[in-house]
Amino acid sequence: MPELRKDPVTGRWVIISTDRAKRPSDFSRERANIKGGDFCPFCPGNESKTPPEILAYRRGENGSRGAWNLRVIPNKFPALGIEGNLDRQADGMFDKMNGIGAHEVVIETPDHMETLATMPSRRVEDVLWAFRDRILDLKKDRRFKYILVFKNHGEAAGASLEHPHSQLIALPILPKQVVEELEGAKRYFANKERCIFCDIIHQELDARVRVAAENQDFVTLAPYAPRFPFETWILPKRHEASFENAPSNVYENLARMLGTLLRKAARVLDDPAYNLVVHSSPLQEDTHDYYHWHVELIPKLTKTAGFEWGTGFYINPTPPEEAARFLREAVVAEPQEAVSK
Amino acid sequence: MPELRKDPVTGRWVIISTDRAKRPSDFSRERANIKGGDFCPFCPGNESKTPPEILAYRRGENGSRGAWNLRVIPNKFPALGIEGNLDRQADGMFDKMNGIGAHEVVIETPDHMETLATMPSRRVEDVLWAFRDRILDLKKDRRFKYILVFKNHGEAAGASLEHPHSQLIALPILPKQVVEELEGAKRYFANKERCIFCDIIHQELDARVRVAAENQDFVTLAPYAPRFPFETWILPKRHEASFENAPSNVYENLARMLGTLLRKAARVLDDPAYNLVVHSSPLQEDTHDYYHWHVELIPKLTKTAGFEWGTGFYINPTPPEEAARFLREAVVAEPQEAVSK
Repeated sequence: MPELRKDPVTGRWVIISTDRAKRPSDFSRERANIKGGDFCPFCPGNESKTPPEILAYRRGENGSRGAWNLRVIPNKFPALGIEGNLDRQADGMFDKMNGIGAHEVVIETPDHMETLATMPSRRVEDVLWAFRDRILDLKKDRRFKYILVFKNHGEAAGASLEHPHSQLIALPILPKQVVEELEGAKRYFANKERCIFCDIIHQELDARVRVAAENQDFVTLAPYAPRFPFETWILPKRHEASFENAPSNVYENLARMLGTLLRKAARVLDDPAYNLVVHSSPLQEDTHDYYHWHVELIPKLTKTAGFEWGTGFYINPTPPEEAARFLREAVVAEPQEAVSK
Repeated sequence: MPELRKDPVTGRWVIISTDRAKRPSDFSRERANIKGGDFCPFCPGNESKTPPEILAYRRGENGSRGAWNLRVIPNKFPALGIEGNLDRQADGMFDKMNGIGAHEVVIETPDHMETLATMPSRRVEDVLWAFRDRILDLKKDRRFKYILVFKNHGEAAGASLEHPHSQLIALPILPKQVVEELEGAKRYFANKERCIFCDIIHQELDARVRVAAENQDFVTLAPYAPRFPFETWILPKRHEASFENAPSNVYENLARMLGTLLRKAARVLDDPAYNLVVHSSPLQEDTHDYYHWHVELIPKLTKTAGFEWGTGFYINPTPPEEAARFLREAVVAEPQEAVSK
């Protein structure tokens, strides 16, 4: 018998197929499949092909121009424009405004063939610091209400360039899904005076059936009502509403946890394409009591079809307990920092 | 400058790229690509390979078994089970219930290589009547709150079998997206005592910039804030909340309108994979005043990526005015009924 489960935060119901549960090998996977070889505007030496950089981390004390480990640049084809006013307008009975926002690209490494799963965790930590630096800077612009940090890995997940990169989009309005999470968390807090995410972490660490990995500061779990097979969340154990306000010592453990999860997913699911998003507090609201930032990983294993588009209701062929077990049992080794670097 | 537009019903904002607008030829299309040749459980002669049929339309007065034009069968691998009780339960702080529902398949034609775009409109009308017959029957089961009629055409849109078919899923709860449409329409009605969809139809028929096609009973338009390029809605001009309660004489014109839209989409977008859904009133609520049933077509032209999954906010590279113009200007001929049949 399939099961209907409700996400406690958003109230979204999903269908979990328990009968015809899919194991990792059952998916006709679209591997990330990084080939290299073509001209790449993100590779070292081609810096002039990108818009001027906003931020770069360089090697050593006297790093010369070009010897970067990480660069942040404006997206050459931004979804939103940085210049101008919102200029809200009616259009008959409809509403519109100018598409004002920021759209930036974090080039995570100079090495085209590396990934967040193969990079030493010190270098993954740099990527997290870059997110934080950019959020703190973009936050000063009062036109922006929300910043989404996300990553598309592999063509099947929507990546148009192979070279490892993440993106930030600063938005002038709160996106629907964020509002739903916020409202659900707020309702729960109003009712219980507790953070719903803290309660979830507590219950999951007790039950240990949906926990995929854990370290001192973070827990990785398959959520109770995931939309997608092998959807996984990384949550900080200590309550905090905003990614950028996390105590600075936790980024090291987040980098480790993220690397571990991506290596486990690569092992279990044969290097799948994936989407990664950071859900953090809106910029201009005090959500400190009830919201709890986290990272969501969605491996690209299934096709979203008419039922999902028509209802917002997801059919998930893999129970999260199964997904968590596969990930938990996958043995992976941490990559070592090359001595020569 | 990109534009932010708000869907007046759901309140969902989308980003419309006006600068780098995509024309039909710019998409790396995944064609529906029906090949035939393999064993097909939906083809005539293989009726024993499907679960026993629920309904069939047969040719002529004395149609013998097998000479069917259309069959409805239970889905062999249903997303929800028909037997049992909901048995709502707590699971610690979480909520679940049994996955009770109905999942049926409408085999639209005996001809593997035909499509709704190439079938004579009398036969498309039969498909619509089958939807209606099945909805009226499933509606008697008081466990069900909503029925979604949908179609996945082409592998890229999630179709696992090539043979032309649609599906119905009866659900024990109201899906999120339906609730959002209902609530938006209810709010509008509370404010204005008018149906929001009727107002949209009125304004669009006046402006004529987003109208793609029209006949006596229906209008096909690109919505003001579409999530996807070439997303199109077919709306009945006469107010009615439920598909199955539409006056019986309008199904003929809906079949014509749907055939026309699918032929135009096939012409403009080179036979794209697509999802089609019917949005109709919940079964056990009186939504007569404020809800207005309609059909939504989503051609599969782009990949949904991290930004969309993380925010529920869509970036649409094709302004609906452009999409409507391409569809409006595409000249297509209605298929003729073969004389020999």
